[in-house]
Amino acid sequence: MESRSERLMSNSDGLDAVVIANDGEPFLDSTFWYLTEQTSGTFEGSLAIAKRDGSLDVIVSVLEAESAESGAGNVLVYHDREEKNRFIRESLSGCRNVGFNIHSVSYAAVEYVKKTAEGITVSDAGKAIEDTVSVKDEKEIAATREACRISSVVAGEIPDYLSEGVSEKEIAAKMDNRMRELGGTGNAFDTIAAFGPYSSQPHHMPCGYRLKKGDTALFDFGSKYDRYCSDMTRTVFLGKPPEILERAYEIVRKAQEAGISEYRSGAKACDADLAARKIIDDSEFKGKFIHSFGHGIGMDIHQGISVSPASPQILRAGNIVSAEPGIYIPGIGGIRIEDTCLITEEGCEILTSFDHSFTVV
Amino acid sequence: MESRSERLMSNSDGLDAVVIANDGEPFLDSTFWYLTEQTSGTFEGSLAIAKRDGSLDVIVSVLEAESAESGAGNVLVYHDREEKNRFIRESLSGCRNVGFNIHSVSYAAVEYVKKTAEGITVSDAGKAIEDTVSVKDEKEIAATREACRISSVVAGEIPDYLSEGVSEKEIAAKMDNRMRELGGTGNAFDTIAAFGPYSSQPHHMPCGYRLKKGDTALFDFGSKYDRYCSDMTRTVFLGKPPEILERAYEIVRKAQEAGISEYRSGAKACDADLAARKIIDDSEFKGKFIHSFGHGIGMDIHQGISVSPASPQILRAGNIVSAEPGIYIPGIGGIRIEDTCLITEEGCEILTSFDHSFTVV
Repeated sequence: MESRSERLMSNSDGLDAVVIANDGEPFLDSTFWYLTEQTSGTFEGSLAIAKRDGSLDVIVSVLEAESAESGAGNVLVYHDREEKNRFIRESLSGCRNVGFNIHSVSYAAVEYVKKTAEGITVSDAGKAIEDTVSVKDEKEIAATREACRISSVVAGEIPDYLSEGVSEKEIAAKMDNRMRELGGTGNAFDTIAAFGPYSSQPHHMPCGYRLKKGDTALFDFGSKYDRYCSDMTRTVFLGKPPEILERAYEIVRKAQEAGISEYRSGAKACDADLAARKIIDDSEFKGKFIHSFGHGIGMDIHQGISVSPASPQILRAGNIVSAEPGIYIPGIGGIRIEDTCLITEEGCEILTSFDHSFTVV
Repeated sequence: MESRSERLMSNSDGLDAVVIANDGEPFLDSTFWYLTEQTSGTFEGSLAIAKRDGSLDVIVSVLEAESAESGAGNVLVYHDREEKNRFIRESLSGCRNVGFNIHSVSYAAVEYVKKTAEGITVSDAGKAIEDTVSVKDEKEIAATREACRISSVVAGEIPDYLSEGVSEKEIAAKMDNRMRELGGTGNAFDTIAAFGPYSSQPHHMPCGYRLKKGDTALFDFGSKYDRYCSDMTRTVFLGKPPEILERAYEIVRKAQEAGISEYRSGAKACDADLAARKIIDDSEFKGKFIHSFGHGIGMDIHQGISVSPASPQILRAGNIVSAEPGIYIPGIGGIRIEDTCLITEEGCEILTSFDHSFTVV
């Protein structure tokens, strides 16, 4: 079987090497963990360098030496800056056209490698990396499946958590604790709990607002399992909401179904977005779907694939993507429904599960 | 009172502007939240631009428009890439020497701004930003104090959590849950729980290893409160450990005291490291302290200040730094003791608290 660095280089035509360079936390590139198959360690300042022949050099400080030995690649342990510079120079010796993951590396890290390994030119290896990591192998799918199972249990329990007067913060903390109890290794991202008027802000962070009768209660959350993420959103109501929100819920539900029906290997990513968007824009809620239908999911919660109106990408079996249409009415409330989906040859498998029908608690 | 952007620009001699540019998560710069005084929102792709006159432009997508209104600065909401480009060009009109936070911005984001606002040159604004954010105001100190209070309660409870057969993962999850129960708004970083031989890896991530009699149990953890972090490490033992670890514990304790006694406004940061290191290197554990004595703490868990042997920095009142010497003996175990300290005019205030004496559970 090909190693992951071999797969990356077979997607990297014209590049002599691909450099993954971590800076300080949080400026760490998950591609480092993908290539090294590390399960432990923080690896600030470490580099993973994939070379034309598919070999992988992993340059780490003595602080990470013990951790690094458990992973893939030729581990080179440096004790000071001079030794680190030498490893970088030797690893990139003879390389000219060097790819970097330019959206996931600090400006300083690229400038440092450029200066250290003289004579290289910087290319954008983002697409090669995306193409590689966005097609998940069995091990990655199994981890994602488990992350989805964990968050789906919590989605099912949400109605039990809610009553008049509970705060967004309280419920978010409860959900996070529950995901850990169920075996999650951490949050995929900061849980969004948005009640009433706050639900019309797609990225609202939980505050002290307390749930009232007639409020929307929107939850966007996910678990990690072995570094892999799930992502889902469930929207329910405490008591009967204004009728406009009930109508919006039904439109979002239909929009999600329409989008998901476009998910299959070989399909254009934009088609799912456009199918969902058409449902919303043909309704009284025209223009109220103010973000994309979906995004790739992996070790990062947003990875590789954009399911948006202008996306030029083609979906492939093994991609994992979200399906998350929404309608946002400032001052009144927002609705979003989201699942995590695995693209297959024939269609897609929805990895998350919860009751999608209009739910009044 | 000066605004935060005015403070930043008064530290930024020679720069016409400082650009803080978020890419996708996790490539977000906490300086964005510092300048905008935002408490809500994710702000992927957003920019905060501080200008020579101290004014602040905050360029955000329509997705964040509602959130952005609660913060500081002139909020400019873009609906597409072209409008975003125009806001950047207008904001940087007439600017030539533009500072970026080069370790906390993606290579792609800098290249994008360079291309959009023609004629600018990129400077490193890292030091100006560090000098600004590393001197905390009262609001920031209050938030850090609360984060420290929360994690200190958990540090005190650690002995109650431990018994033969508990796993690293279980205890880490319990600690995280407890910090949230106590009012924490999230982890400051992934909790390290390292038992027995794993404790000799400074950055070990919790695994399924189960605690045995005679094992070291090392916990490095912190809470967030209103985005601000605490950082602390407590090391205890289940039953009597090998004598070498008891001796190592006492040396680390003395090293921490020696380092902390050097903490005061006007002191060289390196002196605290060197004082602690001397204690360890004068003992049988020479060379076993393989990292720095401390680092700045703020919205990022590693911020601004390096308390290391070669650090040229001078400490100032309002700095918040860790004090965390350690001794690591591969295959046997590791010891680390860590507190979060606020530098004052006369010395320092230790914001975390727990029993530092050699503790056998």
